[in-house]
Amino acid sequence: MGDPRGIFLINGLFAVMLAAAMLIPAAVDLVAGNADYQVFLAAAAASGFLGGTVVACTWRRGIRLTLRGAFVLTTSVWLVLPTLAALPFAMAGLEMSYTDAFFEAMSGLTTTGSTVIIGLDNAPPGILIWRSILQWLGGVGIIVTAIAVLPLLQIGGMQLFRMESSESSDKAMPRAAQIAGATAVIYLVLTLVCAVLLWGTGLGAFDAMAHAMTTVATGGFSTRDASVGGFANPHMEWIIIVFMVLGSLPFVLYLQAVRGRPMALWRDTQVRWFFLTVGGLLALVAMLTDLFLQVEPVEGLRLMLFNVISVMTGTGYASADYGEWGRAATAVFFFTMFIGGCAGSTSCGIKIFRFRVMFENARVQIRELIRPNSVLVPRFNGRPIESHVTDAVMSYFFLFAMVFGMLAFLLTLTGLDMTTALSGAATAVANVGPGLGDIIGPSGNFQPLPDTAKWLLSAGMLLGRLELFTVLVLFTRRFWVA
Amino acid sequence: MGDPRGIFLINGLFAVMLAAAMLIPAAVDLVAGNADYQVFLAAAAASGFLGGTVVACTWRRGIRLTLRGAFVLTTSVWLVLPTLAALPFAMAGLEMSYTDAFFEAMSGLTTTGSTVIIGLDNAPPGILIWRSILQWLGGVGIIVTAIAVLPLLQIGGMQLFRMESSESSDKAMPRAAQIAGATAVIYLVLTLVCAVLLWGTGLGAFDAMAHAMTTVATGGFSTRDASVGGFANPHMEWIIIVFMVLGSLPFVLYLQAVRGRPMALWRDTQVRWFFLTVGGLLALVAMLTDLFLQVEPVEGLRLMLFNVISVMTGTGYASADYGEWGRAATAVFFFTMFIGGCAGSTSCGIKIFRFRVMFENARVQIRELIRPNSVLVPRFNGRPIESHVTDAVMSYFFLFAMVFGMLAFLLTLTGLDMTTALSGAATAVANVGPGLGDIIGPSGNFQPLPDTAKWLLSAGMLLGRLELFTVLVLFTRRFWVA
Repeated sequence: MGDPRGIFLINGLFAVMLAAAMLIPAAVDLVAGNADYQVFLAAAAASGFLGGTVVACTWRRGIRLTLRGAFVLTTSVWLVLPTLAALPFAMAGLEMSYTDAFFEAMSGLTTTGSTVIIGLDNAPPGILIWRSILQWLGGVGIIVTAIAVLPLLQIGGMQLFRMESSESSDKAMPRAAQIAGATAVIYLVLTLVCAVLLWGTGLGAFDAMAHAMTTVATGGFSTRDASVGGFANPHMEWIIIVFMVLGSLPFVLYLQAVRGRPMALWRDTQVRWFFLTVGGLLALVAMLTDLFLQVEPVEGLRLMLFNVISVMTGTGYASADYGEWGRAATAVFFFTMFIGGCAGSTSCGIKIFRFRVMFENARVQIRELIRPNSVLVPRFNGRPIESHVTDAVMSYFFLFAMVFGMLAFLLTLTGLDMTTALSGAATAVANVGPGLGDIIGPSGNFQPLPDTAKWLLSAGMLLGRLELFTVLVLFTRRFWVA
Repeated sequence: MGDPRGIFLINGLFAVMLAAAMLIPAAVDLVAGNADYQVFLAAAAASGFLGGTVVACTWRRGIRLTLRGAFVLTTSVWLVLPTLAALPFAMAGLEMSYTDAFFEAMSGLTTTGSTVIIGLDNAPPGILIWRSILQWLGGVGIIVTAIAVLPLLQIGGMQLFRMESSESSDKAMPRAAQIAGATAVIYLVLTLVCAVLLWGTGLGAFDAMAHAMTTVATGGFSTRDASVGGFANPHMEWIIIVFMVLGSLPFVLYLQAVRGRPMALWRDTQVRWFFLTVGGLLALVAMLTDLFLQVEPVEGLRLMLFNVISVMTGTGYASADYGEWGRAATAVFFFTMFIGGCAGSTSCGIKIFRFRVMFENARVQIRELIRPNSVLVPRFNGRPIESHVTDAVMSYFFLFAMVFGMLAFLLTLTGLDMTTALSGAATAVANVGPGLGDIIGPSGNFQPLPDTAKWLLSAGMLLGRLELFTVLVLFTRRFWVA
């Protein structure tokens, strides 16, 4: 394991940063004249004191983490932060149980977007902006993790996206850190542009900022119970469509675009298949519903595009109750939850590149059946896929199916019906947001679920967000011995 | 493609054999004084004439099949035979549509066991024994295919079970044919023993024979609407439990047992994990239901064991409506459908060995995450698994998930609810029999489904029975060109 102090130190630093972030909702509530500002200050003090103490006790220059340390660190950060971020929810005037508070915080930081709060329309602004901040931080956190940490850990085929120049080089970490920093700047710029555009459609500055943060993070927390649909603002929906897509493409390619290689974005296999998939799903939903008969063509297109992209990218906003669009369309939305966006973005799910790798591998398999003596190598982005990448991707898919099945089963144990259990498990592990059915569907809420189900779903969100392996590896005996 | 005449010839021979098999129900109906005997004679004449003509036109000594020819042959046999076997159903007094007749025949020959016939209790004996004969023939057909054909075609990891001595040897086919022949004898003996034992429990000779044939084939057609539960005969259920298990173990190991190596059976990884899985599922169902509070312990054990094994092995008998055992138990039965038995048996599903290979691979993946520089090789039955086997198994799992999802989606298009669509797709592709829910559940029937759904399910049964690849390969352009 090496020296665990580095792990404590970084967790402490993150706790202090989270405490600093709590000052924003405190300020918002103070300006709005809401008493909850005291809650945020208290939570900030608690988090800051705790984090500060840990930092003070473990401070050192130049942390050296072992590989195992990196696994423990990644999972522990994603457990410690929701635990602290839940404090304001638990203490505020909404009178949430700690279970609900933790669920909401985990749903925020993993950019899932499932909510247990009913009455968002009348909720104090501090709580609303805190939810957005959590998703925004979770979004930038996962991009940095995906760029700098997961490829080095060789998680679920993510080594495909190891920076070419960084392989077998001592400069891997500094260079990854540099790229991660530049990416965070792009993330911030995208958020601000989105906010300004939303504000331009007539949205209040507060709602514009709150939605910009949860859009670019493909998080999906809204400031209304009826989600984005509650604003009845078509321009807002179009802008969100664009920025949900931007949040789901590989951020590294934006960096290349900024550096004068804009075509890299369009030549990328992931990006092409992302748009092909969106187009296919759109055509499918269009055929399966009579939406075009009920509303104007442009409105129908917007409704379908918004909800398809929202579910596929794991954002989880709803602009209509697509659970009412018929059984076949509902089935499409169920399977769409698993797809996800591109690697190195804020979206979750199985992800386009894994489907591509598995399809390529199945194609090669079938070709080898026809010509058993030929040896073919599956390719991704024009380059051959190494066999250990294929193995990692396929193991990821297998574990995803197992975790999904196990979670769905455990949810039925808490008394949920089959639709709620299956879609709840899917929406949690794929970090989407809403499920299907009367309870947790797009017009529903996770509030009525039993506490056990909420903890199970929280665990599912964490597992899904950290690409399963990062967490599961901690449950092996071999990780801790020798 | 080579010379296609061999393919026609073998299909013709099978058609003649099927015509000969039709004489059995004809004789049964004649003895019972049922007018349907004319139907069976007419169908036999049609099949025999058709098959005989094809044989006459294509007759030759020493057929040489290319690899592609073997793919076309396997799929075409499993299409031609149900087409002909459906004739008696369509022409008999039951007044079934050809869709229903084809569904029943496909369900029989693939040993699935889903039925569209309501009123089995009063159905003429000819039809009942014809259903059993189809499953029995399908069962022995798939064992022979699994032993002699699929490993050579390298389907979905089945090359794991290629006979050691046969690799890279010209004697592969004769030796495989010899083993397949010996296996067929064992299959026949098992069936006769099962029939005699069932007869000993007080069952009539007809019902004993009918159930013995569908038990050893893990098919699941019964002679009563209420399935085996309709007989209210505990001894019958225990005997069927034993023979469902015997039908799900690798038949090649029986051969070794007969040849003086009985321990080979217990040392086999598949067999061990088969019993471990049954034990685990039994414990799970026992915990999830209050069956032990409602009935005597032995009766409770029998009920659970019977239905767990029936679903897991893909037999599909029901001795109780386990859909009424609570949501959690229902979820267990849903996931149990996918498991299946051992390779080289009559059972279908994903199969124990594939789960073992994938678990082993995931374990190796996780170990390599911890120690990136170590190279570990997953093992099966003590021997290292070659990487192309792992790839084939994982591609199979991926394609299974895709085919299952696609079929479930297409079923919702025909208007089915989510539970019926999901469980219907699972039960078809895994060749189980009953689904879940009010319509196709263990106490239901496939009769009320729309025709399109019945054709889709028939296609699913065929795909599942032939391990997906055998059929899917025919849909690639590359198979037919060059």
